[in-house]
Parts: sequence; structure tokens; C-alpha cells
Amino acid sequence: MIQRPRGTRDFAPDEMEKRRYIESLMRKEAEIFGFREIATPIFEHAELFTIKSGPGILEEMYAFKDKGGRELTLRPELTAPVMRFFVNELTDMPRPLKLYYMGPCFRYERPQSGRFREFYQFGAELIGAKNPESDAEIISLASSIMKKIGLRDYKVRIGHIGILRDILRKEGVEGENASLILQKLDKKMYDEARVVMEEKGMSEASIKEIIGITKISGQQSVLKELQSFKGEAKEYLSQVMEILEILGIENLLVDLGVVRGLDYYTGVVFEIEVPSLGAEKQVCGGGSYSLAELFGGEKVFSTGFAIGFDRTLIALEKQKIEIPKKRVDVYVIPLTEELRGKAFEITARLRSNEISTDVDLMRRSLQKNLKYAASIGVRYAIILGEREMEKNIVLLRDMDTGEQVPIAITELTEWLAHARGIAPEAAGGDTKKRLGGKLSRPSDAS
Amino acid sequence: MIQRPRGTRDFAPDEMEKRRYIESLMRKEAEIFGFREIATPIFEHAELFTIKSGPGILEEMYAFKDKGGRELTLRPELTAPVMRFFVNELTDMPRPLKLYYMGPCFRYERPQSGRFREFYQFGAELIGAKNPESDAEIISLASSIMKKIGLRDYKVRIGHIGILRDILRKEGVEGENASLILQKLDKKMYDEARVVMEEKGMSEASIKEIIGITKISGQQSVLKELQSFKGEAKEYLSQVMEILEILGIENLLVDLGVVRGLDYYTGVVFEIEVPSLGAEKQVCGGGSYSLAELFGGEKVFSTGFAIGFDRTLIALEKQKIEIPKKRVDVYVIPLTEELRGKAFEITARLRSNEISTDVDLMRRSLQKNLKYAASIGVRYAIILGEREMEKNIVLLRDMDTGEQVPIAITELTEWLAHARGIAPEAAGGDTKKRLGGKLSRPSDAS
Repeated sequence: MIQRPRGTRDFAPDEMEKRRYIESLMRKEAEIFGFREIATPIFEHAELFTIKSGPGILEEMYAFKDKGGRELTLRPELTAPVMRFFVNELTDMPRPLKLYYMGPCFRYERPQSGRFREFYQFGAELIGAKNPESDAEIISLASSIMKKIGLRDYKVRIGHIGILRDILRKEGVEGENASLILQKLDKKMYDEARVVMEEKGMSEASIKEIIGITKISGQQSVLKELQSFKGEAKEYLSQVMEILEILGIENLLVDLGVVRGLDYYTGVVFEIEVPSLGAEKQVCGGGSYSLAELFGGEKVFSTGFAIGFDRTLIALEKQKIEIPKKRVDVYVIPLTEELRGKAFEITARLRSNEISTDVDLMRRSLQKNLKYAASIGVRYAIILGEREMEKNIVLLRDMDTGEQVPIAITELTEWLAHARGIAPEAAGGDTKKRLGGKLSRPSDAS
Repeated sequence: MIQRPRGTRDFAPDEMEKRRYIESLMRKEAEIFGFREIATPIFEHAELFTIKSGPGILEEMYAFKDKGGRELTLRPELTAPVMRFFVNELTDMPRPLKLYYMGPCFRYERPQSGRFREFYQFGAELIGAKNPESDAEIISLASSIMKKIGLRDYKVRIGHIGILRDILRKEGVEGENASLILQKLDKKMYDEARVVMEEKGMSEASIKEIIGITKISGQQSVLKELQSFKGEAKEYLSQVMEILEILGIENLLVDLGVVRGLDYYTGVVFEIEVPSLGAEKQVCGGGSYSLAELFGGEKVFSTGFAIGFDRTLIALEKQKIEIPKKRVDVYVIPLTEELRGKAFEITARLRSNEISTDVDLMRRSLQKNLKYAASIGVRYAIILGEREMEKNIVLLRDMDTGEQVPIAITELTEWLAHARGIAPEAAGGDTKKRLGGKLSRPSDAS
């Protein structure tokens, strides 16, 4: 047997249904916020990511040469492709530009729990706005998505990389040196960060201040602990927090230890985590950044986030959050060969009325058909018998209760559409109610 | 500037919205038919496709070695991955198994009109049923999708590869030799097909019969032209056609020239084409096949199709089929700095009621905000002024008519939800009606 490649997954119908359901809630929330979807290719020129993240990322990518000798790579993330697209083609669009996207990304790493070589990201970017409002908008969307999908016990940790960068700059540490220190701090490797800071000749006071700041975490009031330090960054972060309060965003935490070591992060940075997930607790990360100029565009202020879709699903599962299951409405069973045509006729009519309908394709016995219908979770079986058909009647069987009533063929569509109509199918709607009508005689149903 | 790789595309919001809309109609139709979605990885072991289609396909694939030396490839199509998944993990599921999928595939070929290196397929497979019903079900789904998305002037051409294979077999021509002949016939290269058939020692009568058969095309009655030939295949095809008639499928054509030269096609084969598209007229192809055993599974009868999603969209565009455009419901504009908080409060309340809402993130003037709101196609603007806010009133502006009325903040959500409620948002619903309520005083709206 040929196996699927290591670190990748196949998704069977039940799993796929869950994924699509959560994805649809995420999309819907993004659209409620006025974001619009875009898509970029599965592979890109490798250069796009080495420019953004340095040549080290080549080690972690599925990079390959095409037959024309071009260095390509499966995309390891989506912000760089979106900004490339923006720089090449979207600079004339009205700003701010609010974009979201969802799709597979690829990283060549050892497969382990919650980490796959092919994984899915849902993300959003807000391009062209430079105020605390825009950071608040992005954090608000990420948080609202987590709330909407039913996630519990998550924390939204918000920091500002500019506060640390300001201090480093005052001490003459910028560029790669600053990044190196920030990366150590991001990993809470304080001793190693201290060694680098000492090497770069920073004062003991500044080193202490920086390490102290990265340990500041709590309600908005903790920003007062930064009294000695009156930077623009502190004021900016306060404003972001105020807007988020007004927007009613829950589980907020100021945490200046959120560092995100990459060079292109410029201001507010944030992470959403589910502490109960342990080492894989981070389900979302983002912040404001400056990338367009790296890709040959004009400098433009942007802020965005990426949600680790797979990890978020793992969190939902651990929290035993129930996801509504779709069911096929009807399964049509002809009892004789002669009635097969009639069965297809009824099937076609129900389908054209948007009632999801399956029909015996195997010429099975009644018993085997009912067993199959039950195994695929059908809501109603419609049974066509010779005697009933002479009176233009079929038997409608509630597959959950086993209850069975005769119903006129002419009333069938209406009865089922009515039962369905109680709670019309809507994206994210409660599908359990969809066909929740009590089984009743046709005369009761209108 | 870094360009996207040749032959790939980025999709901007307007284009993406169209694609998602058509995709959602396809998905919905598949689910109405009782099919359920699955997904497989973007890349596979190259072997999967060379086993299915021969080593020649390596030339057309994005094949590469991963860092572990494994031969991988971006998937060129989706039937093989689905059957691999089936053989490895889904053989215990109740049969028939009705699966659908949608995603990008990749072929390394010269980019040209309607052909991309990254292209999208929507497909379905029905696994484990062997009757004319199952072929009819698959053809019916493919055709119903085309009807549902509004495609016009398409033809569903249905043939049976077994009719030709039977004749070849009687003349002792099987396996690769048969495939070679069928491939020539598929391309209507009759002279070359004749040369091969003569080489293989076939009788002149059989050669004439075969070439004659591939030219048979028309209503179901043309099957009578096959009177001299009483094969199982002919009877089977007749039954498929009869079921399709009962199901009310339109634009059907028996066409024994539909050949599909690949070895694993075993029975009924079909193509949907839009003749006005010229060389790129085929938008869907499928048929019954036998692949599971190639991948180490037991032999199982399957039938399925793949729709060329991109080409189908081109056809819809050429036919000027209108696709409803989503609009953001509301854009909130505070006229002063002090009212910014209030603007976020209103924004949050509307969003939590699922009214899609955008808000000024740029601290712009009223005029600039209205210009922006118009440019992104918002339906209503809500304007917050000092004097109105003292009375807890805002101005609601219809962005299409410019009409502007005062409305109490307490009534805002209800008014908008009501306007929206006239035609609730549903997958595939008419979004034009969504906020189609006439602008009226709040008192009229309840």
C-alpha cells in the first residue's frame, strides 16, 4: 500500500465536517468585521521567505527547483505571500485594506503532537492604518473568533515590542543585535539574554529594566509600573487596551513578555494561548509589522495575525466542545425492482427542493437498506411499497425513533420542507434543529 | 519586486468572492445528493501517480525530493489520492461511499488561456456500487451542479468504454495495445488508430465497426444503431440513460466517441462540455474506474468525476452569468475624537448581532470616510455627531440613495437586523435582498 507522506493528514468526512464548521465560523466573523478573503499560490519563490526570515528558514521549508531551475518552496506561512500580493497588485485599493485568508502551509520539521508538516492557518491582515484602532481591530477580530467558536479558558496576551526596542536603541543596540536579544527574551532565556546585553556594552540599569519589563504581566493597570518610562509605545499600548475594553473583548492581559523576535514586528504584538494545552498552548500570534518595503513596495503600516487552525481544533476537542453534525435528510428505498424508477423520481424532486436525499444504489433488501441508512446517519427513510404506491402513498420512517407513518407523495416535499423550515439551514446554524419536527400525520404538518 | 511563480494566480477579494460563491453552490449540491467532503494532502509520494498513469506523468508534475530523499510530488489530480485514502483507511465505512472534494492541483505545463500550473478541481467519487444507478447518480450530480451554478449551453456526452474494449478483446487486443488505440480514438485520430489496429491484425470489419461506433452520437435512440452488437455494455448504458431521463437531467447526449484513453476506466465514461469555449470546452470528465487494486487494496467498483473549476468559471464569465455581491452592512463614522469610543461601542454591538460592520480606523473627516465607505461598497453609513448623540440619536445614511435619517441608538440594531431579516443570509441565497429594506423611520420598521 502507498502511504501518505509523513507529517501530512487525510481528513475523513466526520473530521472534515468539524473542520469546515469551525472554518465557516471564522470566515463569518471575519466578514462581520468587514474583512474580505484573498488567496495566494501554494508555492512561492523561496526568496520571498528568506528575505523575510533569513536564509535559516530554508532548512525548515519544502524548497525545490522547478524544471526551469527556479528556486520554489511550499509556503511556510501566509503573511509574506499576502504582502507580496499587496505590493504587486493591491496598492491602489482603498485603505485600510482588510484581508483574511485560510489555507495549508508547510514546514519540514519532526512531526509531533499538534505539529504537522502540512498545517492550516487562518489569518487576517489590516494594511494601511497606523493608529491604536487598527491594532485593536485586529486583536478584537482574533479574540472574537476564539469566542465565536466556543473556545474557553484562553488568554489574550498583549505587549509592545517598541518598549523594549526603545530601551535597546537608547543603549545603541539595533538591527541584528537587537533581534538576537529579543529572541532570547521571547524564549524566557534571561541569563543568555543578559550575556548578550553585557557583550553589547549595555548598562546594568538598562539590562535590569529590560528583563524587568518582560516580566510585567497583568491587568491594564500594570502599565503604571512603567511610570519611570514615558515612551510613545506605552501610551500607544494604553490606547489599544482602552479600545479593546470598549469593544468588550474578554480575557485580556497586558504582558510585556510577548516579544515575537522577528525583525519586522514594529509595535503592538499579541498572542492567544490556551494554558491547558501545555507546550502547544499558543493558538494565535500577531502584531503590527512592516514588510512591504522588504518586497520592493513603499513602507506601509500593517497589523495582522495567524491562527494555528489545527492547534485550535485540538484545544476545542480537549475542551469537549460539541460541534453540530450535519445529517442527510432522507434515504429512499424501493421495495421492488419495478419501483426503482419511482424512487429516482421522488429523489430528484426532493433534491430539487434542497432536501438532502440519498437513494438505494445497491438494489438491497429493506433490512439492509435500513441498516445502511442508519449507519450513515440519515434522518428519515422513505419506503416505497407496491400496495402503498397504488394509492400514491409512501411510508415515512423516523430513523431515530423507528416510528413509521404513511404519507401522500404529493405532500412529501411540503412535509419535509416544513420540518426543515423550523430552523432553516444557515451557516453556523443549529443543524440539530433542522429536521427536528415531530413525526406527525401529514394533516398535522401544514 | 518578487513575483508570484509563473502559471500561478493570486485572487483578490472580488474574484475570490465569485469563486467561493460558485464553490459553495457546488458543495451544497453535492451535500443535497448525500456526498460528504474529504481532504487529502497537497503533496503525495510520486509513485501514487506513476502507478496510476505511467512514468510519463513525471514530466508534467512538480516532483521533488524531500530532505529525507523521498520522491514527492504536488498532486496533479485528486482521484488517486482519494483512492489511496480509501484503500488505507476507509474500507470499513458503509458502502456505497459518497465522497466529494475541492482543492488545488498542479501541473507543470506551458501556461496558456484557461490552463494554469496551479488549478482547482471539484470532484466526487462514489465507491463500492456497481449498478447503472451509481453511474447515473454521478452523472446526475455533475450535471445538476452545472445547472445549479447557472451554466448554459452545455452538453453531457455519455459513452461506454466497454463497448469498444469488448470488440478489441474479441480481436485479441487488450492491455497497452488497447489503450494505445483508445487514446488515438479519443483524439479523433482515426487514420492513426486504423494503422495501429491493422498492425495488431484486426479484421477490416472490426476496424470499421470500432471507428463507426466512436462516431455514434445523438439522443438515446442512437443506441439502436448498435443493433448488430448485443453486448452487456450496450444494455448497461441504456439503463444509465433511462435513469437519467427519470431524474430529469438535461442536455444529455449518447456519444460513443467519449473514450478517455486511460487504462483504469472500465465502463461508462462521460464529459460535460461548453462548445462555445472552443479548444478548452471540456469542463468536466468522469466515468467508472477500477483503481483500488493498483494501490494495494481489493478490487472495488467506483465511479466519479472531476470538474475543472477554473475553466467552469471562465465559461460562466463568458456567458455573463451574474454572481451576487456581498456587501458590508454598516460603516460607523464618529465626527469628533470624543465620539470615537462611542463608535467602537456601536460597532461591537452591531457585530455581536451578526450585522457586518466596519468603522473608521483612520481618524478621517466625514467626507473622506463617506468616500471610503462608498469605495468598499458599504450599504449604510452611521454618522455620530455631538448634537445627535446628546439625544442618543445617530444618522443612518443609505449609501446608494444618499438618503439620511435620524435613528435612536436603541433602535439601531433592531432596524438593521430587520432590514437584513427580509431575506436571511443563506448559503447561495440572494444577497442582493439582504439589506434591501427601504430606508424608513424607525417607527415603521418594527
